[in-house]
Amino acid sequence: MSLDLAATKPHEELAAALADDLTAVNAMIRARMASEHAPRIPEVTAHLVEAGGKRLRPMLTLAAARMCGYDGPYHVHLAATVEFIHTATLLHDDVVDESSQRRGRPTANLLWDNTSSVLVGDYLFARSFQLMVETGSMRVLDILANAAATIAEGEVLQLTAACDLATTEDIYIQVVRGKTAALFSAAMEVGGEIAGQDQAIKQALFDYGDALGIAFQIVDDLLDYGGTDAIGKNIGDDFRERKLTLPVIRAVAMADDEERAFWVRTIQKGQQAQGDLDQALALLAKHGAMESTRKDAIAWADKAKTALDAVPDHPLRRMLVDLADYVVARIK
Amino acid sequence: MSLDLAATKPHEELAAALADDLTAVNAMIRARMASEHAPRIPEVTAHLVEAGGKRLRPMLTLAAARMCGYDGPYHVHLAATVEFIHTATLLHDDVVDESSQRRGRPTANLLWDNTSSVLVGDYLFARSFQLMVETGSMRVLDILANAAATIAEGEVLQLTAACDLATTEDIYIQVVRGKTAALFSAAMEVGGEIAGQDQAIKQALFDYGDALGIAFQIVDDLLDYGGTDAIGKNIGDDFRERKLTLPVIRAVAMADDEERAFWVRTIQKGQQAQGDLDQALALLAKHGAMESTRKDAIAWADKAKTALDAVPDHPLRRMLVDLADYVVARIK
Repeated sequence: MSLDLAATKPHEELAAALADDLTAVNAMIRARMASEHAPRIPEVTAHLVEAGGKRLRPMLTLAAARMCGYDGPYHVHLAATVEFIHTATLLHDDVVDESSQRRGRPTANLLWDNTSSVLVGDYLFARSFQLMVETGSMRVLDILANAAATIAEGEVLQLTAACDLATTEDIYIQVVRGKTAALFSAAMEVGGEIAGQDQAIKQALFDYGDALGIAFQIVDDLLDYGGTDAIGKNIGDDFRERKLTLPVIRAVAMADDEERAFWVRTIQKGQQAQGDLDQALALLAKHGAMESTRKDAIAWADKAKTALDAVPDHPLRRMLVDLADYVVARIK
Repeated sequence: MSLDLAATKPHEELAAALADDLTAVNAMIRARMASEHAPRIPEVTAHLVEAGGKRLRPMLTLAAARMCGYDGPYHVHLAATVEFIHTATLLHDDVVDESSQRRGRPTANLLWDNTSSVLVGDYLFARSFQLMVETGSMRVLDILANAAATIAEGEVLQLTAACDLATTEDIYIQVVRGKTAALFSAAMEVGGEIAGQDQAIKQALFDYGDALGIAFQIVDDLLDYGGTDAIGKNIGDDFRERKLTLPVIRAVAMADDEERAFWVRTIQKGQQAQGDLDQALALLAKHGAMESTRKDAIAWADKAKTALDAVPDHPLRRMLVDLADYVVARIK
């Protein structure tokens, strides 16, 4: 499928189609972020919540609910829930990564401190928990509790897998589910759940979110080594941070003794010198690791689209299909 | 009421009366702490969960459920939930406080790092969330969601109130509810909730936990300035960390200009010199701040005991009454 990138931005189409719902979500986020007793909370969160995020996750919930015919009030609560969980994990990641930039702004932990990032993240988790309880749906709570466990487990797994050349593709996918896909799939599934859909539809919504999230993260990891049009990306960040992402996992699996020694030195031991990134890129190319990773991302995007076949046709469904194409358009 | 401290340790009496339940709770904690994919998780938590904590919070849930006649399985889930939440907040506090010791052992964030403390704390929150969903009670989830919000808000409030001489007694109580009382009261209330008690009983259980938690924390804060028998306590930690606890709030409220300048210098500006702690202790004594704080703690313990009048008599009820006395016995 060819995409006219200038004309087609599916997340903007979704935002337009869901404009009223998104307005309600933004109002709810502002209202529930406020704290009577602790005014620092909106101070810390505002710069993240208002920072021009695309509201991708809340839109998944809204779209799933709407295309399943939902017309109650709780898709707004759940969309806000999902954005709060996302923001809370960003705050906690800021502590974790000691990152100094997120979305081009200084991270909360530099503007304030680690303490605020941890505690305000906890506050947003608690607020999201209250929001989901308001829906009165035990199945919704079950879905989000399981997603929360997958997210946390994936984050810890990423920590232990860092710098470890024994990291397998299975572990990588598990990490990616934690980092990205678990919240995408839960965001979709809860939309179908409150709309009272049957198990097959809910599974389809889950599968779409899961595959979309995995495609999304693989593309991100691929572009870190250049991909095909990595305009503005800072090539090699993952290499310098010694992360085992899919291209490297594949190149390591096919390495001869000399190449393996290179990966042990640069990733496992972290002894990196000038020219090492170029050498890494050469090894990725030699073993076709970039190309096979690219194919994997596209296969996941196709899986996402196929999953939606189970859902009755709807303009929002077509936008979600386009969104899956858009996620991999950067590497096509 | 006089207490024979050597003979009466109500938490040990409770532990004996609830021995079978506690065994089940410990088994559940170990089972749910495990992570198939991220073996570091039990590594980080084991040293906290197994560190000889008194399991005070889980015992409150077990006692509340049992004395209300509950004989289903879910008090065990909820007791484990409460302990997981407690452990998660300890892990996050370790990041926050940059504390190097907890319960006499090195804290997780020195043994491992801030990253593990944050992420494993999140994992325990997620696990606790799954456990409470298993009870199938939306009211239980509501109680615990509200407790989680109070805890997080109190922690942030503590952060913003630190070093701030404008901190009022109301703010102090709000912080104490977050740090300590909110989990005590929720632990009690959910026990009554799963036992199907009416609103008056559940309110009584909540009030007991709330007042017990506040008494507990006030005693802790009092003993930091010596109290009456602060054997083994490190006097003055709160002063050095510039925390506005109840004795100081009272002394500041009654300070003349010169005394106020002392508090501004030592607490607000943090310019502390040799002899300042002695001077602080002298000002606390001069204004009767220690004595009035002591009376407050005892009044909260009495309030806890009185709350239980609404609950039918039961051996466990008598142990909870003794527990309230025991909490303030150190300052009597």
